Amino acid sequence: MKEFSIIDTFFKQQNHQRKDVLLGIGDDAALTVVPAGQALVTTTDTLLAGVHFLPDAEPSTIARKAVAVNLSDLAAMGAEPAWISLSISLPTADEAWLSAFATGLAEMTRFYSIQLIGGDTVQGPLAVTITAQGFVPPEQALLRSKAKPGDFIYVTGTLGDAGLGLDLLLNKVTVADPINAQYVLNRLHNPTPRLLVGTSLRRIANACIDLSDGLSSDIKHILQASNCGATINVDKLPLSKAMRESVEPQNAVKYALSAGDDYELLFTVSEEQKGKLETAMANTSVSFSCIGQLNGMSNKLEYRLNNQVIDYQATGYQHF
Amino acid sequence: MKEFSIIDTFFKQQNHQRKDVLLGIGDDAALTVVPAGQALVTTTDTLLAGVHFLPDAEPSTIARKAVAVNLSDLAAMGAEPAWISLSISLPTADEAWLSAFATGLAEMTRFYSIQLIGGDTVQGPLAVTITAQGFVPPEQALLRSKAKPGDFIYVTGTLGDAGLGLDLLLNKVTVADPINAQYVLNRLHNPTPRLLVGTSLRRIANACIDLSDGLSSDIKHILQASNCGATINVDKLPLSKAMRESVEPQNAVKYALSAGDDYELLFTVSEEQKGKLETAMANTSVSFSCIGQLNGMSNKLEYRLNNQVIDYQATGYQHF
Repeated sequence: MKEFSIIDTFFKQQNHQRKDVLLGIGDDAALTVVPAGQALVTTTDTLLAGVHFLPDAEPSTIARKAVAVNLSDLAAMGAEPAWISLSISLPTADEAWLSAFATGLAEMTRFYSIQLIGGDTVQGPLAVTITAQGFVPPEQALLRSKAKPGDFIYVTGTLGDAGLGLDLLLNKVTVADPINAQYVLNRLHNPTPRLLVGTSLRRIANACIDLSDGLSSDIKHILQASNCGATINVDKLPLSKAMRESVEPQNAVKYALSAGDDYELLFTVSEEQKGKLETAMANTSVSFSCIGQLNGMSNKLEYRLNNQVIDYQATGYQHF
Repeated sequence: MKEFSIIDTFFKQQNHQRKDVLLGIGDDAALTVVPAGQALVTTTDTLLAGVHFLPDAEPSTIARKAVAVNLSDLAAMGAEPAWISLSISLPTADEAWLSAFATGLAEMTRFYSIQLIGGDTVQGPLAVTITAQGFVPPEQALLRSKAKPGDFIYVTGTLGDAGLGLDLLLNKVTVADPINAQYVLNRLHNPTPRLLVGTSLRRIANACIDLSDGLSSDIKHILQASNCGATINVDKLPLSKAMRESVEPQNAVKYALSAGDDYELLFTVSEEQKGKLETAMANTSVSFSCIGQLNGMSNKLEYRLNNQVIDYQATGYQHF
């Protein structure tokens, strides 16, 4: 099977169509229109077999996750998503694999009203690179660098579930209740990009980042970019029912602080904006928790349990 | 070495800065501004060790080529380039390799006044994916689908050199003259994206494509998209001095028609626009040749030698 028929057969047919795409798949490049007054937001993430997913993972799951992690980056900017480009490296032109992958991709493009506008297929080790593009009014973008001492630190959803799911998949832990097992595996495979939260936080949050490598690692980017310190109250970390029922409290904290792949948003909000935040978040129906506060101590990250400082060494996932 | 220090150390420092980049490397996504009235042009290409370059290729050469092949796609749309995103998969965080790669990348970003706005680094088999973005006034974009029967077919530069260079590198051929050998290897390693030609062809060419897989394969995309046929005069194919001096004429034609990696532009121009074409191309100082003409015979590709139809089976590079 040739490259062109792969793209035509599997990707073009199920593609969601947007009006701002003048020219999609099938030319040397895509032509799209960014709305007046909006900045273009661009992000790229690669998922590699054996690193970001198991080599025998469901192709549709790989597709959904590859889209989700990129959309999560757009969400963290307060952007709305518009278009994605896909580069896929595959050992062989396996039609069943490609068909399942394309179905997963199409589910995502339809659900999020985004369009696949182009890409590349090469023969090689299984890897998926997606570039996602979206928009945000430039002055409303959520940056890592605009956090202020005194800001309260919030996260969406619950933390650590994907990490527990991965350990379950790798037989490093057992999860007694099958419903809980299903839940954490689903959190690993189908992260939810918090797009509506991201756009709702425009003009409310001072800073925002998505949690991909683990809270304890990712928050440092905000501290560094904004020259702040932070206190995290580990007893305030939001834990799912599945997490609480499956692992010891101390282990749950470890997952919540250090495990990757949550794709929840961490954001900071000044005291004055807390009222607006409540209203805005209520409209998203996404749970959120205040887990700590920023201070002026540059790059200092402190953990507290029941308001007592504790010694906790947590490192997120490192790529090398 | 951690992902963040890789990006900071090797890519951020040497980066060309553009005024239309509101936020570059270092946040969840980049923020850029597309000029009013321009369409955004986006393309993605992956280069894989062992497929698109030899595993021991010079890192700076890999970087330059990865940028060039993407810019070539923008050139084929008549677009001017603006920003690139990079995803790099590397077996180990080899500092010498990364430093050389970053230097090659920085040469390109400075030369073409483009900015690296983000990316991803993962540990895995050596592969480089670049997404390039640029602009073109939407009504002036050069498409594959706007060719007309009667259009003359042109190519820039000379054809087949990179293919000869690859065969030389693989010891499949010998090139007697070392200057010629150097020339064809350079054509393989440092393709020249025809950006100035691309923008000069706006409102002059009806259709355009860049030659990446080989003329005989790539022209079919224009024939299919525009529902045309074509006659190619193989005696009019532009051959370099190095090509003419190194291989038999029949072999030279084979390289020119079937070898990949030329990254020249193939474009079609109506009889009425030929005068404008001469003027526009003179300003680019890039050589160009009329190699045939389009006709109304859908998807029929015919080769002629001294105006006699010849039987020539040529296939470009296939990815699977």
